[in-house]
Parts: sequence; structure tokens; C-alpha cells
Amino acid sequence: MPGIAIVGYGYWGPKLVRNFLQNAAFSPVVIVEENADRLARGLRENPGAQGLGSFAEALQRADLAAVALATPVATHHPLAKAALLAGKHVLVEKPLATTAVHAEELVALAAARKLVLGVDHTYVYHAAVQRIREFVRSGELGQLAYIDSSRINLGLFQHDVNVLWDLAVHDLAIINTLTDERPVTVQAIGVAHLTQHIENIGILILRYASGLFVHINCSWVSPVKLRHMLIGGDKKMIVYDDLDGNEPVKIYDTGVVARTDEERNRLLYEYRAGDVYSPRIPQREALANLVADFAQAVQAGGRPVSDGRFGADTVRILEAAQQSVKNRGAEIPLTWK
Amino acid sequence: MPGIAIVGYGYWGPKLVRNFLQNAAFSPVVIVEENADRLARGLRENPGAQGLGSFAEALQRADLAAVALATPVATHHPLAKAALLAGKHVLVEKPLATTAVHAEELVALAAARKLVLGVDHTYVYHAAVQRIREFVRSGELGQLAYIDSSRINLGLFQHDVNVLWDLAVHDLAIINTLTDERPVTVQAIGVAHLTQHIENIGILILRYASGLFVHINCSWVSPVKLRHMLIGGDKKMIVYDDLDGNEPVKIYDTGVVARTDEERNRLLYEYRAGDVYSPRIPQREALANLVADFAQAVQAGGRPVSDGRFGADTVRILEAAQQSVKNRGAEIPLTWK
Amino acid sequence: MPGIAIVGYGYWGPKLVRNFLQNAAFSPVVIVEENADRLARGLRENPGAQGLGSFAEALQRADLAAVALATPVATHHPLAKAALLAGKHVLVEKPLATTAVHAEELVALAAARKLVLGVDHTYVYHAAVQRIREFVRSGELGQLAYIDSSRINLGLFQHDVNVLWDLAVHDLAIINTLTDERPVTVQAIGVAHLTQHIENIGILILRYASGLFVHINCSWVSPVKLRHMLIGGDKKMIVYDDLDGNEPVKIYDTGVVARTDEERNRLLYEYRAGDVYSPRIPQREALANLVADFAQAVQAGGRPVSDGRFGADTVRILEAAQQSVKNRGAEIPLTWK
Amino acid sequence: MPGIAIVGYGYWGPKLVRNFLQNAAFSPVVIVEENADRLARGLRENPGAQGLGSFAEALQRADLAAVALATPVATHHPLAKAALLAGKHVLVEKPLATTAVHAEELVALAAARKLVLGVDHTYVYHAAVQRIREFVRSGELGQLAYIDSSRINLGLFQHDVNVLWDLAVHDLAIINTLTDERPVTVQAIGVAHLTQHIENIGILILRYASGLFVHINCSWVSPVKLRHMLIGGDKKMIVYDDLDGNEPVKIYDTGVVARTDEERNRLLYEYRAGDVYSPRIPQREALANLVADFAQAVQAGGRPVSDGRFGADTVRILEAAQQSVKNRGAEIPLTWK
Repeated sequence: MPGIAIVGYGYWGPKLVRNFLQNAAFSPVVIVEENADRLARGLRENPGAQGLGSFAEALQRADLAAVALATPVATHHPLAKAALLAGKHVLVEKPLATTAVHAEELVALAAARKLVLGVDHTYVYHAAVQRIREFVRSGELGQLAYIDSSRINLGLFQHDVNVLWDLAVHDLAIINTLTDERPVTVQAIGVAHLTQHIENIGILILRYASGLFVHINCSWVSPVKLRHMLIGGDKKMIVYDDLDGNEPVKIYDTGVVARTDEERNRLLYEYRAGDVYSPRIPQREALANLVADFAQAVQAGGRPVSDGRFGADTVRILEAAQQSVKNRGAEIPLTWK
Repeated sequence: MPGIAIVGYGYWGPKLVRNFLQNAAFSPVVIVEENADRLARGLRENPGAQGLGSFAEALQRADLAAVALATPVATHHPLAKAALLAGKHVLVEKPLATTAVHAEELVALAAARKLVLGVDHTYVYHAAVQRIREFVRSGELGQLAYIDSSRINLGLFQHDVNVLWDLAVHDLAIINTLTDERPVTVQAIGVAHLTQHIENIGILILRYASGLFVHINCSWVSPVKLRHMLIGGDKKMIVYDDLDGNEPVKIYDTGVVARTDEERNRLLYEYRAGDVYSPRIPQREALANLVADFAQAVQAGGRPVSDGRFGADTVRILEAAQQSVKNRGAEIPLTWK
Repeated sequence: MPGIAIVGYGYWGPKLVRNFLQNAAFSPVVIVEENADRLARGLRENPGAQGLGSFAEALQRADLAAVALATPVATHHPLAKAALLAGKHVLVEKPLATTAVHAEELVALAAARKLVLGVDHTYVYHAAVQRIREFVRSGELGQLAYIDSSRINLGLFQHDVNVLWDLAVHDLAIINTLTDERPVTVQAIGVAHLTQHIENIGILILRYASGLFVHINCSWVSPVKLRHMLIGGDKKMIVYDDLDGNEPVKIYDTGVVARTDEERNRLLYEYRAGDVYSPRIPQREALANLVADFAQAVQAGGRPVSDGRFGADTVRILEAAQQSVKNRGAEIPLTWK
Repeated sequence: MPGIAIVGYGYWGPKLVRNFLQNAAFSPVVIVEENADRLARGLRENPGAQGLGSFAEALQRADLAAVALATPVATHHPLAKAALLAGKHVLVEKPLATTAVHAEELVALAAARKLVLGVDHTYVYHAAVQRIREFVRSGELGQLAYIDSSRINLGLFQHDVNVLWDLAVHDLAIINTLTDERPVTVQAIGVAHLTQHIENIGILILRYASGLFVHINCSWVSPVKLRHMLIGGDKKMIVYDDLDGNEPVKIYDTGVVARTDEERNRLLYEYRAGDVYSPRIPQREALANLVADFAQAVQAGGRPVSDGRFGADTVRILEAAQQSVKNRGAEIPLTWK
């Protein structure tokens, strides 16, 4: 059985170690951590795991077929590149890289070496998001008209990335999995109240060739927490409230109907308001789904849903957003192959 | 006692007639309506009112000291101007006019003739907004950092104005009464899904010299109704939910505290999360407050809180927003005397 | 066209007058009120209505085929009896009477004279209750197992009736319209914190031959208002929240499934938790539905849904509850024909 | 340092083991479990713990000063008695015993041997409950008038105890810690829909000499989960919603004010509705607080807040409730020393 090295035992690493141990598709599961105290803690908390103090050493071990990176964002590109060059399948914590050029380089490298490159956009594997994707892709909502998301809370100020890279990244992953279409323009506006150049409120606007309009509102300085997404089609609409434990997904049988105002001889629009339906969402840890998807791709030679291409698309949009923020909300055009 | 003519008996006129009758500061209360059926209905519904079929006739009556306009937006400027020129005090349904030039002309005219010019921005007179104004102006919130508003619902498509003129106008009235500061730049982005040039989703961004950042999200195509405003100061923050009948206003004892990370020798920010306090909001119809304020201004020679200057400021911001929407979100600078 | 006299122009009378005028099945609509000021106000507020100062006179008028009573509870029996004896159809504000004997006398009298006797249990005509009745009576919920209602708020203390007669009366009307079954035992427990013998908190328990178990919790001393009813069947369950303007009725695809625990050889029960469905509830004033139902019964010779029999059943249960409260919650058996 | 044996590694045992290990006041922490598989799992999950297959052996070990029982309810009395007789301090999962006689025997035995007897009523150690206790005991609410609790959900049917012993036990623990007063009468009414003699809906009514009136509504067959307690004083009232993660405790500045209706010369009552205040509740695991309290009592020779006396009082009320259920809600008097 192929082994896997999980690199970094800080905030996210422990969750990956636990899930790879439970999934049991890889053996051994090796914690790679230079900090001796953290490594000791990792081994104590995970009796089934092995330990290594050096990333380079992990790359040399033939029994390790894959590497999962839970290290700082700035290290994603160099470590992932080294692992791919060493012939390892790679799973990278989101975002895949800090620039689109770096992200594309990793995608191309994985393709050339026929290695699996996965990105840990965990939201893509949430049961609620997967259910919404089914609704959207089945055509039940009709043509997508808009998506409107609020992702605000009292957040920890980051020192290296702004609120868009920290929070909007989740919305982008969700939206990119609902549709294969990608935005043709990106606009972003932000404000940095406390730390210069690190925006703590960010507004992101995406426009699509199909007419889809996306608005994302992110904030680290809200006294209340909201995780609220509206997805409007011309047949039905969805409200996804990630904080509603009972009914996170609601489908509204609501649409817009055109009619002619004969008296004044012009087109009018009326609303059709109808029933509301809330599907039961099964409870399963999203990260377990992600680990299973990555393991399946490694074993069967396929691609995970959240693969390198998916991760690189997200990075491209965030990079454009960053550029727009610096240019006071200017429209940044994007072209996609 | 001075009389008042309420012009137009469509949607808003009946509310004004009822409130002016109840307020009893003006007598007679005369309904002016060219449509005979509507006028007959107005007299039937308001036994104490008189009726007139002609606006010109109303201007000639010496016993009518004031005119209240509840007519289509496009008529606000010509009718208000004629009334002022005829020496009448004027109350205009919001918005005061469709252009800043027209709005300023009315303000100047009222000042020159020493007449009261009021604008019916009803939200300014809501008890909840008045209570929030007290909190903000007392300094309890500290320096205002941001205001974030969502005003979305399944709305009737308008044929002459977009969603910003229809909905954001309320947010602007609320914000303009919380602070005397006015924005130095305006940005707006919108999308028109159904009727060309009539945006049904609109995002409005205002920046202020003090650092205040305002984000307003308006929509006519949401399956759920939201009236949710966050007001963030550096000492405390407010959540104003106009749809929460029990606790519309909540004050969060939450702020941001700077500290130095000595280990890494840089500035960090922490949150102070604390108690929540929800003041009791007395129940009184906002329009009754507005009518009383206008009547008081006419009697005592003062100015209503929502006067012509206030209404013209709102029009200026909306006009800039309109300009920005046409220019794909470009920043429109505004200067204020 | 037959006329109707609405007797009493206090709290409920004005609503009846307005609805009978709008319904237009009766003409004239005559307000009967001994208090001259109230009568004058009634005529001013309802231009289409006539006025009378004497109930006796109304009974003598041949053009008045029906009488609607909006007078104090203690007067319901004598006034309704006099009206029936005078050959008038009668609509009585709930409760029909203060004792079961009085209620049954009115039912018998109406039957003997072939007159319509309606009781104004308005909740029976709420669109949400009517929709729930369809669900229950269609068998979609399966066998009814329990109903659990909370009807609590800061209420005005009544001086003549306790909280059960004031609030539980609504639950009983709703429950009695969901099923034709009537309880075989009644238990009630209450506490009078302020006024002796006038309970301000009341708990009502009903048991049915079918196994249905009903629990109703009423209070005038709650700082928050609740109108929350659970209706549990063995196939599905309903939550009816009368204060939820968006989704007052939710049907849970939840039931209890029996299985055998083979290891321990005994019967176990598991839950099936599923989707939630919230039907759209049309907006129409319940009282308009009630007035239309009463008018239809008078015109066509039928019986309104909330007829004398229905109202008398409610009185019988409340009378038994009163008896149980005095006997510290003792079970009071009821037999029904 | 004294050691502790945690007996039983089923549902609750793992939580106790983890908390005693984290608390670190006892060493060694020994898992006692006859089932070899469970014991092996316990040792694997808790690297710092030791294991034993026999309760008798644990009692003989001199290094174990205390025993914590997480075994089936029926075993609480015999195991606790044996442990006390062996000179061990004892912590028992709630309820302390299945009969008041057994509970009192344990209390007396612990007192005679000067050993600590604690009962794991975890709710007593919830931060929200502790904050409410402060409010109540400080007199801020005034005289307690009523407590009204709903504790309903889709629950697992128990085979040995009914819903009162399973759910109302929590309400009783909360109420018994808010006040030192104990009820003078107990009434309970229940219904067993599926398993004979095992009620799945239960209503519990307590009356106190001070006038306090308690109503508890428990159910295993509700499609929605509620944990909602109202605590009404004559000065203020509290709503405690254990499922509200943001504002679990709200204090309403609401009371009842008596006035005289001079016109009718009698006493009336009005409500004073005021502000709402929601204190910040610190986040700490309640079980950690309980373990710390028990450890402190063992070390310093005091009594935990939830001691044997406290646990026995709860058992006495539940036993009376059981008796009342069998007697169709008859009032069961209780006397307290």
C-alpha cells in the first residue's frame, strides 16, 4: 500500500493526519515536521502514525507515494514543485499558490509527470454544497442569474493575506464547483482599517458571459457571523445558510415571469412565489470526503474534483481581485481556454 | 390655522392624508387629484378632508399654506418649484428630484423665499433609526469605521428607476442622518437581468474622508427579504435588523484592540467580544413623526430634520451612483461645501 | 338582500363591521351600540353603515335577517337566545357561552328554528390552519399521536376569565377543526400569581380514545411571545409557527420506525429524519373567510365550519378544564354523542 | 498524587477519562472496563491512561483514592456503595440512584465516612447556568414566580427509563441550583406511544411554598429540537436558549406593575416592557468545570456544588414524578428537612 507524508503539524495538519489514518488508503501515514515538540505531539496524538523531521528525507522514501502540504501559503509552490519533481502525488492546502503563474506551473508539471495534484478546497466536499451542485447542474434552477454571498465575522487579522484570500477563497471554490463557467471580468474593492495593505473588508464582483453576476461580501470586523449565499436561477432560487444546522439548504419555488401590460403596451415582470423545500443534508465530515476523493484519484489514476486545474482557477480570480483592489475597483478582464 | 394640499392620491397620498388629519396642525386638509374616481375614494375614506381636481387651483387658494407632493418622481421638481413660487411650504416624497441640479434649485428657492422645504425620507423618523443616531452621535460607538447594509427582497420591477433609486435611497437617508459627513467618492455596480438599463441588483460603495467605508447591497430578485445593517465603530458595533420585531437594534460591546506581538516584534489586533444590549424601541408610526416635524417647522419657522438640503444630498449621491454604474464602477468624486 | 346588525362597537365590532361591508352579502349593515360616542365613531369610520342605539329595536326590524354579537362574554347567551327567538341568524364572538348548558341550549334552539348559529373562532379560517387541516385529514401525517402547543406572551390580565378561556380557546378551536375526534379526559393545572382565581399560567392536557395526547401551555407572563404548535403523526410531523411570516407551516418527513434488536431480542424504535417542506400560505384575512362562510350558510341554508356545535364543543372542554383546575389537575371525563 | 478509576468505557466514560487526564489533579487515571475490546480502545485513545479489567481489583488498589462511575443507572447504587465502603471518594453519573432510599443511603454513607460524593449533573457547571444562577441569587430578578422549560427533540427511546428520567433530570438540576428551595408538590403526566410504561412525552409540574410554579415539557418525539427555559421574576425575566450559540441568555427588563383602575375602583396590572441585555457567556467545557470542582473537594475536603445531597434531591423529585404519572397526575406532596 502506498504511503503518504503530511507536511506541517500546525492548525490544519492534525486534521489531515487523523483523516488519512481513518481513511486507511495510505500506509504508512508519516508526519513531517521540523519542530521537534510539534512532531512529538503529533505522534502522541496519532498512535498509528510515523514521524520524520525532514521534508527532503520524505521525498527520498520510496514507500511514500504522496505528499500532503499543510504549510504556510508562501511555501506551497516550492514544496509542491519539489514533491512533483520527486515523483510524488501532491495534495496542497488552499490556495494552491500565491500567483497564477506558480499555480499553472504546478498544474503543467503534474500533467507532464502524470501525477495527481489535489487542492484542499474543503467546501467543495461539504454535503450541502454537493447537494446544491446537483440542483444547479440538473437544471432545476434554470439559467443562473446571480450569486450573492455574505461571509463576515469577527476574524483574526492575517498578516500576509487580506480578507479576500482568507474568506472569499471559500466562495470562489463553491461557485467554481457549481458551474464550469469562469468569470470574464473581476472587480474588487476593499478597505484596510488597521494594517496598511491588508484589507479587512472586501467586496468582490464577478461577471460571466452567460449573464451570471456574482457579489461576495467578506469582512473580519463584523460583530455577528454570517455564512449566507443566495443562488438565483430563472426557475428557482436557493438560500444556503451554512450556520443553520437544521435547514442549511432551502430551495424556493420562486421565479420571475414576464407578461405584457396591455394597457400601457410594455413588458412587465411579475414574481411567482411558491413553496419552500429543504432537503435533508447527511452529516459527514467534508475532509473525509476530500481525502477519499484524493485517495481514489491516486489509486485509479483519475482526478479529484478539486484538482490542480480547479485550484489554479481560484488563484487566477484572487490574483485579479488583488489587482482590482489596488486599482480602486477597476474591471480586470480574464480569458480562459 | 393654515391649510395643506396633499397632491396625488395613489399609493403614498392616502397615508399622508390620514397622518395630516390625525396630526391636526393644518386645516383644511385638501386632497388634490385630477382623477375623479380616486378623488371620490379619497373623500370617502377621509370624512374630514376636502377635495380639489386641480393643482393650479390649490396654489391659488390663500387658506392653503403648504403643499405635500405624492406624485410621480418626474413631477417632483416642476410641481415643487411652482408651489414654492406660489409661496407655499412644500413637503416632497423622496427622492426630492431626479437630478442634483434640480434638487439644488429647489433648496435655493426655498431659502430665498424663506419657505420650509421638507423631503419625505420616512426612515429618518423611524424610532429605531433615531435611537441608533443617538448612540452614534453620543460617541458611544467611537469612530465610525464601516456601515454594511443588505436591503434585498422580491421587489416589483420599476420602469423608470433602478434598484438603487428604489432601495438604496433608504440606506442613504439612514446613513446621512447618522453622521453629517458626506462621502468623497461613490462607486456603484449593477446588473439588469430583465429590462435594459434598469438594474435589479445594485452594489453601492461610499468612502469618506474620515475613513468610513459604506457598502450597500440592493436587490429586487432575492427569494428572501433582508433589511440588515451593520454599523461598526472602533468601540462598539450595532446590528439593525428592521425585520426583527422584538429586538431590531442590538449594540455589541465588541471592538478591536491593538497589541504588540513581542516575539515577532509587530503589531497585532485582537477582538474584544462582550455583552449585547438591545434597547426597547417605542412603537410609533414614523410618518406621524415626520408630519409633526414638518408641521413644527412651518409653525415655528425652523427646518425639519429631513429638509431640502438633506434630500438634495441624497439625490447627489444617487446621481453619482448612476454615473458610476454606467462607467462600470468607476470612482466618482464628490465635493461638499 | 338580508340585513345584519353588528352589536357592540368596542374592540372586535369594528373588524366585523368592516368585513361585513366588504363582503357585501348583507345589506344594510347596522351598527348597534348603546354608547352614543361609540356609535358616532362607528358611523364616521364606516360611511356605508347605519346605526341603532337599541338591541331590542334591531330584533324588531324585519329587514335584518342576522345578528352578530361582539359584546362581553357574559352577554353572549342572553343576547343570542333573544335573537334566535326573534328569528334571526346569529354569529357569536367566541366563546359561544360561559357554560356548556347555555351553549347547548343555543345549539338546540338554532336547530329547532332552522337558523344559522355561527361562532367566531377566527383561527379556524386562517389559511395556515386550513392548509394543516388538509394535510391532517388527507392522511399524509398518518395516525395523530400528539399535539403540543405553546401560546405565551405578555398579556393583558383579564378580570373575568383566566388564561385558558383567553388563549387556550384558540388552540382548542384549531385542534377541533383538525380532527372530529373529541377528548375523553381533560386535565388542567394553573397558577394565579396576581389576581385570585384568575390563573395567568395554565397547562391543559387532553387524552383521546385514539391515543392522541394534547398538551397546551398558556401564559400571560412570558417576556417573549410564542405561538408554536407541533402536530405529530406516525408518518410525518408539522410545526406551525404563527409568528413566522415566511414559513408558518413546515412538514417534516420524520417518523418513528420499529425494528427488532436481534442481539437482545426486543423491539427498538428508530427515527427517520428527512426533508422539510414548507407550503406557500396565501395571504387573506381570516375574518373575511369567516364572514363569507357565515353569509354562505345564511344564503344557502347550510352550516358554517365554525357553527354552534363546534363552539359548544369548545365550551365543554374549557368548562371541564376549569373544573380540573379547581380540583388540582384531576382528570375530568367527557362523553360525546 | 491520588489516583482515580473511571468505571465503564461506553458513551460517557471516554469524556470523563479525557477530562480527568486534562485536569491532572489525579494520577494515575485508570480505565476500568470488563469488556476487553472497549478497554483496548480506551487505552489506545488515551495514551496517558492505565487499564484494569475488574472493578473489585480497582477497589483494592491503595493508589486509587477515587472512583467515577459511568455505568448503567441500575448499577449506580451497588457500585457506589461498594466504593464508599472501600474508602473511595465517588463521582456518579446522573441520576445518583433509581430510588430516593438508595440515594439517601449513599449520602449518609459518604457523610459517615467523610468521603466526597459527587453527582455528574453536568448542566450545573455550564457557564450559562452559572451566570443565570448569579442573576437569580443576586436578587436582580426579584421574587421567582415561574420557570417554564421545553426540552424536546427526536430522542432515542430508552428501555429502562422514561423521558422524565432522561430529559427532565437536566431541568431539575438547573432549577435546583438556581434556588435552594425544593418543591412541596409534584405532578406529572405522560404518554407512552410505543413502549408500554416508558413515557416518551412527559409534563412535570412543581409547586413551591414561595409561590414558585414550575412547568417542564419533555419529549422524544418532536421533529425539532428545543432547549428553551423561561425564568420569571417579579422584577425581571430571563430566557435561556441553550441552542442559541450567540446569545443563550437574555435578561428582559420586564415586570408586572399593579395599579388601580379608579373609574371601576379595582386593581389592574400593567406590563413594563423594557430593554434586553445578553451577557457574554465564556466558552469552557462544563465537564471540565465539574471535574475541577470534584478534584477540589477531594483535595481540600469540601463538597462539590453537585454533591450527593444535590443528586438525592433530584432523585426524590423524579421518584415522586414517576408516582404521579402512575396516578394520572395526582399531586404528590414532598417534605424536606
